[in-house]
This record gives sequence, structure tokens and C-alpha cells, in this order.
Amino acid sequence: MDEKFVSRQNLNFLLFEVFETDKLSHHEYFSEFNKDTLDMVLRTSYIMAERMMRPYLREMDKNPPVYKDGEVHVNPAVKEFIRKCGEIGFIAAPFPAEDGGQQLPRTIVNACNYMFSAANYSLSVYPGLTSGAANLILNFASKELKDYYLPKMFSGEWQGTMALTEPDAGSSLSDVKTKAIRTEEGFFKIKGQKIFISAGTHDAVDNVIHLMLARIEGAPAGVKGISLFVVPKLRGDGRGGLEPNDLFCGGIEHKLGYRGSPITQLHIGENGECRGWLVGEENLGLTYMFRMMNEERINVGIGATGIASAAYYDSLKYATERKQGRLPGNKNPESPQCGIIEHTDIKRMLLFQRAVTEGSLSLALQVSYYLDQMNICGTEEKERYDLLTEFLTPIVKSYPSEKGILSTSAGVQILGGYGLCEDFNLELYYRDARIHPIHEGTTGIQGQDILGRKATMKKGAALKLFIREITLCIDEAKNYPELSSYADKLSDALDLFIKTSESLFILASQGKTEEFLSDATLYLEMAGTIAIAWQWLLQGITAVKGLEKNDELFFINFYSAKIHTMKYFFRYELPAVETLAKILTDGGHLTTGVSADIFID
Amino acid sequence: MDEKFVSRQNLNFLLFEVFETDKLSHHEYFSEFNKDTLDMVLRTSYIMAERMMRPYLREMDKNPPVYKDGEVHVNPAVKEFIRKCGEIGFIAAPFPAEDGGQQLPRTIVNACNYMFSAANYSLSVYPGLTSGAANLILNFASKELKDYYLPKMFSGEWQGTMALTEPDAGSSLSDVKTKAIRTEEGFFKIKGQKIFISAGTHDAVDNVIHLMLARIEGAPAGVKGISLFVVPKLRGDGRGGLEPNDLFCGGIEHKLGYRGSPITQLHIGENGECRGWLVGEENLGLTYMFRMMNEERINVGIGATGIASAAYYDSLKYATERKQGRLPGNKNPESPQCGIIEHTDIKRMLLFQRAVTEGSLSLALQVSYYLDQMNICGTEEKERYDLLTEFLTPIVKSYPSEKGILSTSAGVQILGGYGLCEDFNLELYYRDARIHPIHEGTTGIQGQDILGRKATMKKGAALKLFIREITLCIDEAKNYPELSSYADKLSDALDLFIKTSESLFILASQGKTEEFLSDATLYLEMAGTIAIAWQWLLQGITAVKGLEKNDELFFINFYSAKIHTMKYFFRYELPAVETLAKILTDGGHLTTGVSADIFID
Repeated sequence: MDEKFVSRQNLNFLLFEVFETDKLSHHEYFSEFNKDTLDMVLRTSYIMAERMMRPYLREMDKNPPVYKDGEVHVNPAVKEFIRKCGEIGFIAAPFPAEDGGQQLPRTIVNACNYMFSAANYSLSVYPGLTSGAANLILNFASKELKDYYLPKMFSGEWQGTMALTEPDAGSSLSDVKTKAIRTEEGFFKIKGQKIFISAGTHDAVDNVIHLMLARIEGAPAGVKGISLFVVPKLRGDGRGGLEPNDLFCGGIEHKLGYRGSPITQLHIGENGECRGWLVGEENLGLTYMFRMMNEERINVGIGATGIASAAYYDSLKYATERKQGRLPGNKNPESPQCGIIEHTDIKRMLLFQRAVTEGSLSLALQVSYYLDQMNICGTEEKERYDLLTEFLTPIVKSYPSEKGILSTSAGVQILGGYGLCEDFNLELYYRDARIHPIHEGTTGIQGQDILGRKATMKKGAALKLFIREITLCIDEAKNYPELSSYADKLSDALDLFIKTSESLFILASQGKTEEFLSDATLYLEMAGTIAIAWQWLLQGITAVKGLEKNDELFFINFYSAKIHTMKYFFRYELPAVETLAKILTDGGHLTTGVSADIFID
Repeated sequence: MDEKFVSRQNLNFLLFEVFETDKLSHHEYFSEFNKDTLDMVLRTSYIMAERMMRPYLREMDKNPPVYKDGEVHVNPAVKEFIRKCGEIGFIAAPFPAEDGGQQLPRTIVNACNYMFSAANYSLSVYPGLTSGAANLILNFASKELKDYYLPKMFSGEWQGTMALTEPDAGSSLSDVKTKAIRTEEGFFKIKGQKIFISAGTHDAVDNVIHLMLARIEGAPAGVKGISLFVVPKLRGDGRGGLEPNDLFCGGIEHKLGYRGSPITQLHIGENGECRGWLVGEENLGLTYMFRMMNEERINVGIGATGIASAAYYDSLKYATERKQGRLPGNKNPESPQCGIIEHTDIKRMLLFQRAVTEGSLSLALQVSYYLDQMNICGTEEKERYDLLTEFLTPIVKSYPSEKGILSTSAGVQILGGYGLCEDFNLELYYRDARIHPIHEGTTGIQGQDILGRKATMKKGAALKLFIREITLCIDEAKNYPELSSYADKLSDALDLFIKTSESLFILASQGKTEEFLSDATLYLEMAGTIAIAWQWLLQGITAVKGLEKNDELFFINFYSAKIHTMKYFFRYELPAVETLAKILTDGGHLTTGVSADIFID
């Protein structure tokens, strides 16, 4: 039970030294909390992660949910965990008190989500999905729907889902075909099919509430004709009970990882008896969904970071204990073998894992910080934080998703042959991590989002704010002699990013949309690398300040290691931006204006 | 059954246009073969791959070998395939006719290995392991041992293994502890434990012949005290029969991928009754093993390439059939969705997969070409080819192993959610591919090998030959206007590689061994990227020549696509060498002289 999957010291450093989350309590909105109560929330979550989640990691992977006759049977740990989340108010934690929430800062909620993901990613998603679905109801549904659904969702008795994907509408949500037929009884009749719906039905809850996209008969084609509905698995029978709502789970997917959570296929209204209730206005479904999508995407990034974190600590433990080989220069075969952590290549891989994990976590908390600020600041600042969140969301989602695969893979590599064996968890993390670049919008979609939408929105306002935030950090770092050369490196990288962006915008202004967006994924990678470098410089500043204030050996070591990991990032990861800039601006487009025939052989 | 897993057209291109393998038959050693017979070998192997291997891919993954009471039960397809390989002479194919082999060119053998790996990697390893073990017996054992063991190994009745790894001796083979105790009866008594032994025992064969490293009592410590033994599972009973040899399989590993082949734990001589026969001279075991290791490492690279190939064709098929989304600029939501292969990001990922697969295959065949030349050339040339093989082996092993993971992952990404589902093979390839950077020497070990040994051996002779081969290719490419700018790019990259090497050698000459080798893995990546660029330029030259000679539409398309993929590699992959050079030469070593304490938090 003493396996480490997160560093609470690192969380404290980020939350209370870098982002000073406790200072939020000076503001009325967060005045219910102080450092002690926030600590208590974190401690409770950690204990839940350790005791209610971690022990079921391998078991839930080994015995994934079982589908039988329309129902999905999950591990009993699922029910226990969801109910506990309900009981302590975690499902409603970030929501306003007036809506039944706790007004807990997002920074803290997301720190808890990180611990949960690291402990057992499959298990962590159940309450998260309910929160996301509840958030849609809370923001856009009628009082009646809110009053009916939210209490049971907040208590963990009812599961929430996001029911978007269909066989012909995955990345292209504008092609959603599920039909909604108007009735005169205040509800719609829903008919269609959904696939890949996480937790679409299971026996750890009494009901499942789908927040479902469908097209009202006669609605315009495309994105402008999609509406959002609440479609429960069981609907109220008007007598305080529940009755079936003609919603049938046809099966679950057997999959590489993330096996503890069922991904379901749903048949909706096969007997013409499925009722759905409109959320908000007609035809605005996708708008609502995308207003909430940012949070889901941030959650994916945090999930990926959590898995990378658990992988890091497992491989660190192995590297500390395993003896193998001798250092170069030691030619005495009779000398004892050294710990593999002494080998430079192992250290490099561990530093990579750490740099990815802690850099990604920092960025996720940075955005969480903006979300918290939006609850306590004025209108103008709010717009600023909103734009920053918009710009950063595809990065927060994709950087840990993509690099998380590589850093988890580095963890496998550290264990050598054991990394592939089920006796260790690395192979499980490696499988679990693979979903993140896919769900809630693939990395390709995120690339289109950041370059095609976010970088250009409001005349580049979001991009400019991103640049300004980094510039402020660079300016501050220059005040510290040990950081100034790193500040310069980031400054150079940022200049290159600006130049690269400008050169791409020229293509856009020439109407060469396809060329403009053709390597958007690489643009996203470039922006991501710079964003993480920024977060490392930020951590570097805090660490330097920490060193000035502390003379305890533990803290001296901790802050020094932070600076060392920052240096790792700047030496080994940041230089990739030059390559990316080169590719993005060299002009020789190879993926536009070329027929798919080239792949015939 | 019409699922494509390799391109026979591409194999023909590489074998008969780029490397002109059929010209080998002009030489006496290979005079038994001509273009027609080589074609027949390839066709037979393809049919075997398609009919005897491919259909069992998912089944063997789903139902991995079962361990019971010391025996391992494998899929019946294993026996059928091994015996067929024996029957057609494939296990002995590359060996001299005087030793019972076929003298088949390595280029052809490895082309067949590639098809087998692509069809079903787990199944492909059984005969390959026997070949490797037989090769050791053939080269270093006494006539008596050869006569006794080789016929049954060549026929596929007996399995061969390489029994190296022990619980405390994985990457560090010098720490092998298995004991060999001299007797007066011509054999040694062996006692010890081996782990991670592929195909260490199973019921598809009548016997298993381990080529085992052990230490003779009283031998010097370290690499200089390790000897090589033949240790059969069942030994001759002196009456023409077989009897147990006190060699017990204690279990098998449950693992991420490569599940169709058992990885076993062996307990050797627990009752003091295990007999082993010395191969060659005492204390030269590791030397023998490493003489053969190159071929095993090349096989790993080919295996990785095979998996990447199958993944490429599966994702290409999906991308061709799947409709999703519309191209940027098409704002009509009622227009039909386009094939995802039309999206630039999908094309980029497919080109990446293709560039990795075909580039890696080309390099493996390049080395196979050198091996073939060594059978027909004079002494001086032989040394040249030998040095080139030495230098290239760590690249042939590691490049497809490392990039194969990424390209298989790109294949998963192309399928989106379906990439994770067991209904498609991508998730299986993704799992199977992960072993390659680990077995037969990790990527870290390969890095140490190329920089610490190969680049510096014989005063840099191997490195110089590598540079010379590339320079010759660059010079030839300059004759073709459409290739000259690519020749220049490779020339620049090569210069950078030379400068980087020189700057590292200065560290070595200053005795800074640990700093010199600290980023050897990145040096390997740099060398690998350049080697693959070279192979693409070589293919580009052949394609340009092909275009001059052909006016059939199919071939025009094929050659044009080759050139397009070459351009992809130069645009998207080659620029990484600049980043790598920067990291390798920037001097700020972060993994040497730093305590492992930095990881405590």
C-alpha cells in the first residue's frame, strides 16, 4: 500500500507556492475555505485514492466489465467509490453553492482529479463523467430538469454521460443523425444509435442520465441543427418511481486499456418509446456542448498526467532497487553491480518522465487558476482569463496525452523485460495511456482547434495573451542570475513561435486554408513545448525563491531537483521547437494537393 | 484473407531494383539461384505467411501459451509452421550447403523474415530462434555436437533457444552466475536459473536445445569467464532415445504483447543431473555469442519493421474506407463526408508510417546485402563489409524498434476509437511492438554499442566507411535534378553528424567516459535518422531511374509515391538531426555527476 503514485510534496509546491491557491480564500466566493480546509480536502482525496482506488487497479483491468442482456456488471469498487464521491460532495465540488455545489476552487478539484487518475484511471472517470453531465444540466437546463436530476447525480446514485459519438459521427459531430421527434407532452421522442459512450450503463448506479446530441426533425443540416437532450435510461413514472425509457445497451467494447470502465453501444428508441427532454434552446446543442467541452478536455489532460505520474513513480522505484551493470570506467567485474538509477540513460529517462508529468500538471493547474480567477475578478479580466483558457485547453489536453505515451513508454523501458510483464503495472499504464490522444477530440482535432480557431480568434487576442503571460514570466526570471540563460532560451523559442505563427497566418490570409492547417498538429506540439517550458521556468522561479527561504536539507534537495528538471526540459525538450518551426515554415506541402493514390502499391 | 500486411511490389523494388539481389547468382556461391528461384522462395514464404500465420494472429494473442506442470502448451499452428519451415529448408536456409544449408542469400532470407513478422510476429520467432541457436553450433561446436543436433533442429523437430538472461544478469551479461561443473565424462554439470527465455519449452517440438551461457568453476570473473554450452531439455540416452536432462520450466510470463510465444523461466540442474556440452573453447562464450548477436539484432529490427508494416496497411485500409468530416473550405454540411485519407493529418501519419517501414526495411536489406557480399568477395572487401555491418547493426535493431512504436501508434490514431478495440488489429500491433526496444539488448545498450564501440573501433574505420557509403549515394543523387536538393540536405546532415561525432570523441580522449557516453541513445537516434535518409535517397535514385524506364501507370504511380515518401522523410524526419546535434554538443551534462537523490520528493 506504500507504492507512490503521486508526490504530495510536488502538489503542495504547485498549489501553494507556484499558484498560491490558498490566497483564493481572501475572496468572498472562496471564503468558506482556508489553507487548512483545502489541505483536508487534498488529504481526504489522497486517502480515497490510496484505499478505495489503487487496490483495484490490476483487478479492474484483469476483470473488465461484463455485458449480459443489456446490463453491464462492473467491479463492486465502482459503486463504493462513486457513492463516497457523492457523500463527500466531490461530484458537485466545483459548482456554486446555490446549485448544491461546494464552490471548491478548480485548482483543488483538479489536483484531486490528478490523484484519482494516478491511482486508477478507469475508476476515476465515473464521477468525472457525472460532473460533466451535471454541469450541462446546471448551466443550460430548466429548473424542473435541474431539480429532478441533479440531486441524485450529485449523490452518486445516478451516473451521467456525454452521449455524442455515433457510427458516422465521431470526430465530425456535425453529422449526428440521432433523431428527436417533437411531441405535445413536453418531451421529444429520441431514436438513434450512439457508440463509444463511457459508462453508458452499469450496475453500480440506479440510473444513467445521458446528455445526448440529437437532431430535431426539420432542423438545419450541420452544426446548426443539433440540439441537446437529457435522455435517462429510466424515466420518472409520474408516481415517484422509475420505468424503462426504451434505451438499450447493445454491447461493450473490448479494448487495449482503460478496461475498468465500460465503453458502450446504445440503441435508443428502437420501440419508439424513448423520451428525451430538451436542454436549453433548440439547435444550440453543439454550442452548449462545446462550452463544457473545455472542462472535459482539461480532464483528459489531467487523466493522462495522472497515468504518467504513476508510471514515473513505479519506474523510479524499480530504478532505485534494481542493480545491474557498472558505471563506465569501472573495469572490475567483481565489484558489486550498481543501481540502474546510476546509469546516465536511466537518469535521462526518469528526468523525461518527471519533466513531462510535473510540467503537464503545472499547466493544468495554471488553467485551473484562470478558471478560479474568473469567479472572483471583473469583466475585463474575466475575458482575458477566458481567452487564455480557450487557447491553452487544446495544449492541456494534448501535451500530456501525447508525451504521456512517450513518458509511460520510457517507464516501461526502465524496467526492461519486466516492463512488459503483468507482475508490474507499467504495461497497464502503457495500455491505459493510449486513449488520451483519441477521446474528447483527437490530437488532430486539437491541432485544428488551436491553429484554425484559437490562434486567430478575436484578431489573435488569445494568442497575444498567451505570449504576454510567457513574456511576463521571462521578465521575472531574468531577475535571477541562475535562471537568466533559461529565460533567454524561452524568449528565443517564443520569438520563433511568433514568427512561425505569422508565417502561417499569411497562408490563411491568402485563402490557402488547407495549407494553413495541414501541419496544425505540429503547431500544437510547438505551442505545447513552449507552454511547458514556460511552466518549468515558473517552477524554477518559485524554486529559486524557495531555496532563498529554506535551509532544511529536504527542501534544499527538492528545490534543487526542480531546477535540475527545469534544466532537463530546456536542454532536451525545448530544442524541438526549432525543428518544428523549420517544418512548419519550409513551404513544401506534401499532404495537400496530392491524391490518395500515392498509397496504392 | 485479402488483408494486406506487406507490399510485395515494394519488396520486389527493394530486392531487385535497389539491391539487385538476383545479380548474386552470377557468383559461384549463389549460383544455385536465379531470379526465378528467388521469386519462388519469396512466393512460397508469402503464401505460408498468409495461410499458415496470418489466420492465427488474433487467436494466438487471445489464447496465449498455457503453462502446466513444467510443460507449455502452444497453439497447434506453431507445430505446423515450424515443421513446414523445416520441410522447405527455411531454418537452415542461409547456412552453407556443406553444413546442410541452402546458401540462400541473406537478403532473401530476411525478406522472408519480414513477411513472417508482418503476418504474425509471435509465430515467426520459433524457427528464427532455432536458426540462431543452430548457427552457434554450426560455427563453434564440435563435429559430434553438430551431427547430433543440427539435423533435428533444421527439420523443425527440435527447438533452439538462446539462454542468456538470469535474474541478476539481463543487460549485464558479464554477471552470469549459472555454474558449469567439469566431469570426466565429456560433459559439464550445469546448475542455475535462466529467465525470459523465448520458447524455452513447448509442446510443438520433441526437444528444446538451449545455447546457454554459464561459468565454469574457477573461471575468471566478468566477461572473460563465461562459456557457451549446449544444454538440451532431453538428452540422448545412449540407446538412440531421449531422457530428461534435469531442466525444468518453472513458469511463463504473462505479458503485454508478443503473447503467442512463451517467455519461460528455467531451473537448471536442481537435482544435480543437468548435463551441458561445451561449445568451442572455455571462457569464450560471450565472444561466440556476440559473433552471432548481430544477426539476432538484425532479426529484431526486421521483426519491428514487419509489425510496423502490418500496422501501416491496416490503417491505410481503414483510412481508405472510413468517411468522416469534410475538407477545410467545404462549408456545406449536406455534402457527403470525405474519406479520412483526404485529411492532411491522416496523410501525414500514413506517410510517417510508410517512411519508417520502408526506410527500415531498406536498411535491413542493405546490411543483408553486405552479409551476402561477404560470401563472394575478397578479404579486404570482406573487412569493409564486416565493419559496415558492425556499425549499422545497432541502427538496424533500434531505429525500427523505436520508430516502429511511434508508427504503430500513428496507425492506432488513424483508427481513432476503433484503434483501441479488439475488433481491429492495431491495438495488438501496438502491444506486440513494445518488446523490440528491449530484447536482444535495449536501445540504451545499442547506444553504448554504436558510440562506445562501433564509432571508435579500428580508429574510426567503421564510422568512416558509413560516411563514405552515404557520400557515394549523395554524389550519385546529385546527378538527378529532382534529387539534388535532397542530396544537399543529406550532405548537411552528414556534416553535422561528423562534427557531432568529433566533438564527442574529444570528451572520450579527455578520459571523460561517462560524459562521452551519457547521451549515446541520442547519438544512436541521430545516426539512425541519417542512415534512413540515406536509404530513402537510395530509393529515390532507383525510383527516378524507374520513371525513366517505365510508362505503365501503375509503375509511374509507384515510383512517384516512392519519391513523395522520400520527400516526406527529408521534410519531417531529417530535421531532427539538428536538434539532436544541439543536445549532444551543448556541454551541459545533466545526467553525470548528479546524485540519484534528486529523485527523492
